[in-house]
Amino acid sequence: MYSFKNDYSEGAHPRILAALMESNFEQVDGYGGDRFTQQAVELIKEKLDRTDVDVHLLAGGTQTNLTALSAFLKPHEAAIAASTGHILTHETGAIEATGHKILGVVTENGKLNPSHLKIVLEQHTDEHMVKPKLVYISNSTEIGSIYDKNELEQLRDFCKEHKLILFMDGARLGSALCSEENDVELSDLPNLVDAFYIGGTKNGALIGEALVICRDSLKEDFRFHMKQKGALLAKGRLLGIQFLELFRDNLFFDLAKHANKMANVLRTELAKANFKFLTHAPSNQIFPILPNSLIEELQKKYSFYVWEKVAPDYSAIRLVTSWATKEEEVVAFIEDMKKVLQK
Amino acid sequence: MYSFKNDYSEGAHPRILAALMESNFEQVDGYGGDRFTQQAVELIKEKLDRTDVDVHLLAGGTQTNLTALSAFLKPHEAAIAASTGHILTHETGAIEATGHKILGVVTENGKLNPSHLKIVLEQHTDEHMVKPKLVYISNSTEIGSIYDKNELEQLRDFCKEHKLILFMDGARLGSALCSEENDVELSDLPNLVDAFYIGGTKNGALIGEALVICRDSLKEDFRFHMKQKGALLAKGRLLGIQFLELFRDNLFFDLAKHANKMANVLRTELAKANFKFLTHAPSNQIFPILPNSLIEELQKKYSFYVWEKVAPDYSAIRLVTSWATKEEEVVAFIEDMKKVLQK
Amino acid sequence: MYSFKNDYSEGAHPRILAALMESNFEQVDGYGGDRFTQQAVELIKEKLDRTDVDVHLLAGGTQTNLTALSAFLKPHEAAIAASTGHILTHETGAIEATGHKILGVVTENGKLNPSHLKIVLEQHTDEHMVKPKLVYISNSTEIGSIYDKNELEQLRDFCKEHKLILFMDGARLGSALCSEENDVELSDLPNLVDAFYIGGTKNGALIGEALVICRDSLKEDFRFHMKQKGALLAKGRLLGIQFLELFRDNLFFDLAKHANKMANVLRTELAKANFKFLTHAPSNQIFPILPNSLIEELQKKYSFYVWEKVAPDYSAIRLVTSWATKEEEVVAFIEDMKKVLQK
Amino acid sequence: MYSFKNDYSEGAHPRILAALMESNFEQVDGYGGDRFTQQAVELIKEKLDRTDVDVHLLAGGTQTNLTALSAFLKPHEAAIAASTGHILTHETGAIEATGHKILGVVTENGKLNPSHLKIVLEQHTDEHMVKPKLVYISNSTEIGSIYDKNELEQLRDFCKEHKLILFMDGARLGSALCSEENDVELSDLPNLVDAFYIGGTKNGALIGEALVICRDSLKEDFRFHMKQKGALLAKGRLLGIQFLELFRDNLFFDLAKHANKMANVLRTELAKANFKFLTHAPSNQIFPILPNSLIEELQKKYSFYVWEKVAPDYSAIRLVTSWATKEEEVVAFIEDMKKVLQK
Repeated sequence: MYSFKNDYSEGAHPRILAALMESNFEQVDGYGGDRFTQQAVELIKEKLDRTDVDVHLLAGGTQTNLTALSAFLKPHEAAIAASTGHILTHETGAIEATGHKILGVVTENGKLNPSHLKIVLEQHTDEHMVKPKLVYISNSTEIGSIYDKNELEQLRDFCKEHKLILFMDGARLGSALCSEENDVELSDLPNLVDAFYIGGTKNGALIGEALVICRDSLKEDFRFHMKQKGALLAKGRLLGIQFLELFRDNLFFDLAKHANKMANVLRTELAKANFKFLTHAPSNQIFPILPNSLIEELQKKYSFYVWEKVAPDYSAIRLVTSWATKEEEVVAFIEDMKKVLQK
Repeated sequence: MYSFKNDYSEGAHPRILAALMESNFEQVDGYGGDRFTQQAVELIKEKLDRTDVDVHLLAGGTQTNLTALSAFLKPHEAAIAASTGHILTHETGAIEATGHKILGVVTENGKLNPSHLKIVLEQHTDEHMVKPKLVYISNSTEIGSIYDKNELEQLRDFCKEHKLILFMDGARLGSALCSEENDVELSDLPNLVDAFYIGGTKNGALIGEALVICRDSLKEDFRFHMKQKGALLAKGRLLGIQFLELFRDNLFFDLAKHANKMANVLRTELAKANFKFLTHAPSNQIFPILPNSLIEELQKKYSFYVWEKVAPDYSAIRLVTSWATKEEEVVAFIEDMKKVLQK
Repeated sequence: MYSFKNDYSEGAHPRILAALMESNFEQVDGYGGDRFTQQAVELIKEKLDRTDVDVHLLAGGTQTNLTALSAFLKPHEAAIAASTGHILTHETGAIEATGHKILGVVTENGKLNPSHLKIVLEQHTDEHMVKPKLVYISNSTEIGSIYDKNELEQLRDFCKEHKLILFMDGARLGSALCSEENDVELSDLPNLVDAFYIGGTKNGALIGEALVICRDSLKEDFRFHMKQKGALLAKGRLLGIQFLELFRDNLFFDLAKHANKMANVLRTELAKANFKFLTHAPSNQIFPILPNSLIEELQKKYSFYVWEKVAPDYSAIRLVTSWATKEEEVVAFIEDMKKVLQK
Repeated sequence: MYSFKNDYSEGAHPRILAALMESNFEQVDGYGGDRFTQQAVELIKEKLDRTDVDVHLLAGGTQTNLTALSAFLKPHEAAIAASTGHILTHETGAIEATGHKILGVVTENGKLNPSHLKIVLEQHTDEHMVKPKLVYISNSTEIGSIYDKNELEQLRDFCKEHKLILFMDGARLGSALCSEENDVELSDLPNLVDAFYIGGTKNGALIGEALVICRDSLKEDFRFHMKQKGALLAKGRLLGIQFLELFRDNLFFDLAKHANKMANVLRTELAKANFKFLTHAPSNQIFPILPNSLIEELQKKYSFYVWEKVAPDYSAIRLVTSWATKEEEVVAFIEDMKKVLQK
């Protein structure tokens, strides 16, 4: 049974494990005071071509979201998110547990735009309602779509005009930036958003997200917030070593490209077989709509999520590829699909 | 410069890294649904000789404390802790950030006893004050002391009588249980406390604490709390594999024994040199009181914390040993001390 | 300028002020330990025909909602509310500020029913999502509709079956219970919901809501929660005296009947003039849809909220009547309307 | 049985009730948008001789403390308070429930000074500990002492130097400012502290505290915080009318003077009888140390709190006087004391 369920089914890229092993007995300070973390931070700043951003390494996505948002917002301030946004649906109320409402907006493709934001602002006018303050976007989104540069510029300009904080969840940023449809560089991001993170967990690391804080007013005392939320690892080296390895050369991007390439194969072949897709998803998650009978057959050899019933006999499934996805398994999946169709 | 600053200066025990490497490409479910986590949980239950406890694997100590305490307490309920307790002093208000007051009690040796608790209960009598509900103890404590079985039984009985929850922070449980002065078995703990955790981070793992919930009423929905607090790792395997390796045989205890043995050498030699200690600390942390001149000399070759000024010319330092402490460095430290003293 | 903006534009019913004056110099204990509060509580239990409920007096609606919900829910548990629900829209995130998500459901008339709840439960299935636990309903609702007994019984049965807490916001309970379309008795409520409150502020009191907790498991330590949330008034007598006066005879109901009667006059006359209404609202809030030109004319002599644009030339307005609404002003409003229409 | 238990045993000063009655049927906007509140705010600014402060009216002391502190502090920031401070001991963890630790400092007389603060700052040096940010003082304190101008200036200067917020709980500010030993004017306060409140509840109002925010950076969006914490009364007029009456002339001060005068009589006569006092308390709370036998006799006719056992046969009691304390009862108390002593 081969799994296309998600992009965290395997451990870490072998180079990362090797780096852990190699550095294992070097004594270093705890809580991110180690040289690996310091080097990883410098390296990321270099890749961003910016010395004036702050970079912090945290263990996971929900942890990063809740630590950042609770640090950035005052008690009466709320986040705006697409109704498909991870913080709204799949974090067990983590943001609300820190005291903040999330205002959900129904979108067509998981992406927010200024007209969505405008409506929310118009609805929140006085002290009887929360004050919308932070715009949460994911790139790639939870349904596989990605933001292009123009869309991000529009969001940035609207947020600047209305004194909103623009925050990008980059749990799958690698896949977004390496999409064939992408026109955003990693180094563009500090000019586009106020804070974002570079997801390691879903792109070859054991754990790890690198939060980049670009806006000065959001930087102060961030390590206090990390410690308070349980996000400051005693062995911070574990995060530093991994990001150092991911960004020492182009490993981070190479891994994302592989994931996307595998998704491309699946997407192309499914399209050739005339299947439609639930969303336009040019990243490492795709949502083909298949006959239930086909789904049942495929489930005998592959595991994946059935996402949504689309018609009585048709459902959308989610196929996720990753840095570790084996090409021969992708090929086998397509072959198996064809066999079923030929019956 | 050799470091006795803490027990998390190195990476992980080589067997743990080997286990990560060996299992690396096996596809498993996320968020602790993997076979490694399941096996580790079963193994720990076996070692505890109890099938009716719940075991959860979390990344770090502060995270475990805040997740457990916020899950166990209602909004108006408070924790009681020694004034040296980690949650009270070195977690940046993590417990308060989840809404709960901690009532600090001054102790002689970092350990709570029923007479401390009695006073707190007598002071909190009505709805104008918080309701003390959970007793937080650390074993070993933050200043190196350990609880014996009789002390734990007294606390258990008092807590039972007064409907208090007894919670043990076991970040350094290995060292406590392997102390020469210890008379508590790991498998005694479910009969003594309502919940406790087995610290991995400070005993050979990269990260990882195994929380054991013994009291039935505290078990419900605990994974919801973990997710909400950012404590459910996507690659839960990282925790499972490590605890599996630590408890597959006696590695966990062997590592703690080594740490204690190294501390014993230091303690014995320092005592022979007629130095006193700030606390009675039969575990892997010791607090010798040394002349400042000696401290300065030692700091040229070793790093450690100066803990507290004790007299104009004397200070207590903290020396921490670990699974990774090299015997030759301990010997060298003692030799260097003797050289300075002979001058 | 006469106001139909809300039901808290005036002070208190004269009998309440008289009762405050009469009792003014009697020395009593603070924080609700006074005889007035005790008597009011007993009286309310009598009216409910139940000795086994707990009654607490709080100052306002938002305060009551946030104190109750935060006391009733564990950190990972969420409330379900209609998308028009007061806690969701007009309490500045008060519930989220205590850590809990509210799951909004779009309804036709501001009322929840079991089929709404069923969908929410089906969507929330594991620990990656909050656990829906409390159903928040308002009676009358924020848009003037009321629940009939059968609807409440269906909700009760569904909640019981699914272990949900059913909570009724009764800020305008008086008007609901005195509606011509109502078939629910005050004394039915403990058999229908787990907790509810009887609104005083909007029915003749200066401030005051009487929270009734019916389900045993929700009662414990509630005064601790009140104190913690700033809801325990030093001069609790202020609440006790008012509720004593409201329930000493039928004043509470008489005041609500007057409010409804005034709304009935407005409703009937507006219907006679062939105007439609935004919602079916048989209580003291009505939402007629009027031509903008008429609205502008009426605004010269009356204040009220323009609720919603309905068509290019038509808007719904909100007219609220109260215990203090003067019949002559209602008559004048209708006359003025007719004059404008005859032009 | 006459009560010296507290200063909120009676209702309100008759002039306040008369003002409520007189204004009762005037229709006004809700939530503090009424002319009474606006006038009261202007009047208080006038008395403070400052147009640049913000004034908000809230219902009670705990509510004011929790709303202000949670608005002023970021998640990792803590308050410093005397160990006798109300927020630390008698508010059921209200501040912690909003997420903030309070750092308690043992004082001799309930008053903080810069040397206390210096120690706290020295102990809190990095991100593993909370960041002390707000200094909470009460004037008069919970044990009857008051701050003189020089003490407040020293605190102000220290706080300014160390970027701390200085907050004064003025639940009993009237009594402090009218003490014979006081040298602080109401209008001095905006130059001394960053925010403070003027307590109405304990000085003749039914409910009500007027929070004055002096520092600009603390003002923003404060009404959002009030609403979120349930502190925005629908009938805000109730607060406005009362403060208008208290400050229309000198009623606020006259009432406090009466309370102090009554305390003076008790203090003087008890001193004449050679009794000592637990604290130096020149305000409306005094703590005489009396033989238990005398206490028992007095308890037959008077109610008051026995505060603390001082010696086997002696206890300190707390006697509180108020605007409503009757001179004849004070005289009777002294007479009864003398009778017992003469036996």
